[in-house]
Amino acid sequence: MGKIYVVGIGPGGKEARTLEMLEAIKESDVIVAYTTYAKLIQDLTDGKEVITAKMKEEVFRAKVAIEKALQGHTVAVISSGDPQVYGMAGLIYDMACKNNVNVEIQIIPGITAANAVAAKLGSPLSMDFAVISLSDLLIPSEEILNRVRKAAEGDFVIVLYNPINKPLLLEAMRIIKEVKGIDVPVGIVKSAYREDEEIMIATLSTWEKFLNKINMITTIIVGNSKSYICNNKIITPRGYERRYDLHVIDSNS
Amino acid sequence: MGKIYVVGIGPGGKEARTLEMLEAIKESDVIVAYTTYAKLIQDLTDGKEVITAKMKEEVFRAKVAIEKALQGHTVAVISSGDPQVYGMAGLIYDMACKNNVNVEIQIIPGITAANAVAAKLGSPLSMDFAVISLSDLLIPSEEILNRVRKAAEGDFVIVLYNPINKPLLLEAMRIIKEVKGIDVPVGIVKSAYREDEEIMIATLSTWEKFLNKINMITTIIVGNSKSYICNNKIITPRGYERRYDLHVIDSNS
Repeated sequence: MGKIYVVGIGPGGKEARTLEMLEAIKESDVIVAYTTYAKLIQDLTDGKEVITAKMKEEVFRAKVAIEKALQGHTVAVISSGDPQVYGMAGLIYDMACKNNVNVEIQIIPGITAANAVAAKLGSPLSMDFAVISLSDLLIPSEEILNRVRKAAEGDFVIVLYNPINKPLLLEAMRIIKEVKGIDVPVGIVKSAYREDEEIMIATLSTWEKFLNKINMITTIIVGNSKSYICNNKIITPRGYERRYDLHVIDSNS
Repeated sequence: MGKIYVVGIGPGGKEARTLEMLEAIKESDVIVAYTTYAKLIQDLTDGKEVITAKMKEEVFRAKVAIEKALQGHTVAVISSGDPQVYGMAGLIYDMACKNNVNVEIQIIPGITAANAVAAKLGSPLSMDFAVISLSDLLIPSEEILNRVRKAAEGDFVIVLYNPINKPLLLEAMRIIKEVKGIDVPVGIVKSAYREDEEIMIATLSTWEKFLNKINMITTIIVGNSKSYICNNKIITPRGYERRYDLHVIDSNS
């Protein structure tokens, strides 16, 4: 009986690779990956069978992975970031269950864009946050926009993945601004941890000046009502300032 | 001029360490850590100055880190999981800004409990999710419960960190059940990736049988309205089933 590892490789660079991820790929004899991700781990897949596929071929990739495992192979299915967060993990479990296939599946977690991108912006993610995909390929836009509204009403920090549909993005940001009723910081990161990385800091009033920069590999983080910008970083206070005096640094120490 | 790395070490075991994290600790001459985390990375800190502190001494840890950096040291401040998600990153940025201290700060992201724990449960995190801390040490419980309600109304998968206050946890789960109006899967993981790890799968109707097991290092994930349990794993469908036929596995291939 084979096995499937569903592996998160993090944001893409080698620096976010985990020891567990390296081990899982080493142990696998078949690699199933979207073409771009296969390139990102090319240095790890020498001598293995590498099956690549285009975007939107997720069902094909999951089917191949499960069938290869049934044939006795150890298969690594590659996702960027974390394999659960809009990656291949859910689909593989779902298909294995629906087809009554008994194959061992192990998830190797990775650093998802929310955390990777937030690290580039300062510390926007230091309070409760909501992660929402703006891709309406599979989920109706009304369902997505309802979640955006509820997240804004709860004063969550909001992380928006896959802003491929510009009208939907504009409507989501309009709702957040309408609900929050105040101006809060917006961080935009394109191609995090890759060569062409771009980091943009704005607010709900000014972010649209970066609209032309936003594409599929952009992640957007909108702060909560207490987030602020200092030295071009977005900071979301954790709440210590509500109970402690934070003016305690001795600069001459 | 010194530098502060705010470093996420992931859930605790060596397997989730990233190459970037190993590099940052290697480069630092001062390590600032909560006692338990200092032990988890003991194999990496030989010959370095290690400053430990107890829980609830976060302000002290941030102060020491900033002052050491001002003295010219390279300092690694250690958080478990990701350093932004209820870790030290927000506090350090906030204090540096409030005290007008100009010191370089770099966040090294880590795998946060949401992703680490979800990997043990199947694939509960495959749709939009909300992360909420149930610690009311710094944040009023009404604010926390409002966020829980909004997350439930938005049908987010809900990840609950720090369930140290049992009455607050019971009230949060009551609200989720009331809003969702249906029974959904609940995953509970204690000490993920550590020796005494325990994984519990239940539903909103049955989870209380595990109440005595829940402590500070437990993370709870409540599925969305489409999550289901199969072979003792929680699966949240990604939405492919809305557009594609998933019964395509050839078991004899």
